[in-house]
Amino acid sequence: MPRPANPETRSRLLDKGGNLISTRGFNATGVQEITSVAGVPKGSFYNYFESKEAFAVEVLTEYWDSVVATYGPILADHNMAPLARIARYFASLAEFHERRGYAVGCLIGNMALEVTPSSEHVRITLAAIYRQWMASLTECLREAQAQGELPAGKDPGQIAVALIDAFEGAVTRAKVERNRSPFDSFEGFVLPALVT
Amino acid sequence: MPRPANPETRSRLLDKGGNLISTRGFNATGVQEITSVAGVPKGSFYNYFESKEAFAVEVLTEYWDSVVATYGPILADHNMAPLARIARYFASLAEFHERRGYAVGCLIGNMALEVTPSSEHVRITLAAIYRQWMASLTECLREAQAQGELPAGKDPGQIAVALIDAFEGAVTRAKVERNRSPFDSFEGFVLPALVT
Repeated sequence: MPRPANPETRSRLLDKGGNLISTRGFNATGVQEITSVAGVPKGSFYNYFESKEAFAVEVLTEYWDSVVATYGPILADHNMAPLARIARYFASLAEFHERRGYAVGCLIGNMALEVTPSSEHVRITLAAIYRQWMASLTECLREAQAQGELPAGKDPGQIAVALIDAFEGAVTRAKVERNRSPFDSFEGFVLPALVT
Repeated sequence: MPRPANPETRSRLLDKGGNLISTRGFNATGVQEITSVAGVPKGSFYNYFESKEAFAVEVLTEYWDSVVATYGPILADHNMAPLARIARYFASLAEFHERRGYAVGCLIGNMALEVTPSSEHVRITLAAIYRQWMASLTECLREAQAQGELPAGKDPGQIAVALIDAFEGAVTRAKVERNRSPFDSFEGFVLPALVT
């Protein structure tokens, strides 16, 4: 693979093409459409990415990095009690989905369901993302435990994965319902039930 | 649309083509591949289905009908206490996913994430399936409440959707992890936490 001539083109491919993959799905999006929406010649795609699969891995990684950059600080905000941070964190993610009309969903769940059967590279990337997601929530839940907000007998790691699974299921149902009722259920019932 | 000449062909298209859609996804599966795997000429597809979207709605409906027929009776088995039925029900669904190596996932979640952005028909079908799923669990949880297994102040409908979302999230993560740890989390921690 030749050295990319233009980092700006690469970035535009990831941005515009990533939007297409997020909204329409990986399999429904061709390389031709990715280059077309980014306004670059089709052949140049392979100057920047080995394959559509490699492109998907980068899109996924950028998506996760942006989630971490945007919402991660909420979990580390020591001006709030740890459990309030967790509630604010998921409420902010729900607002993110609300702004997109609930139709796009979460790229992590989308790719988990659509792309893992055909791409081991995407599957392994997703497994690493789940581990990081779990670790960041676990750390905040440990603080909650240290401060007596969470009972001592509880397992923060167990709660963290349970929250992630329940939230991803809510995102899935929100794509069907096209309203925030799945997030109301998560915030009003599931989250409190899992941390008490 | 002409009257289907051969119900057996129709059924084979749904069966074999439905497997393709379940394992590879809706967008990755073409009509050509569906007719090819069913061993019928491509043109005949449209004698049976108006479009690939209409085909997907029927595949989804058949999938749900088979889930109801296979696992629904567990929820109505009066030889077991209601909460034990709920636990057995989800454990049996987890075994179903285990038999498929966790790679296929649940067609409800798969289609929710992949197809709802492009198909209002699939989205409405899924919304109806979610309602039926919720109703069947709610009924069993009401029995649990009537028998004193579930506290009187709990809302069975709220618990039902929470269980569905958490389970679908576990199915999603199982496609990534390719093992039953997400179901262990659901059965060992989430389910008990939501019904107590």
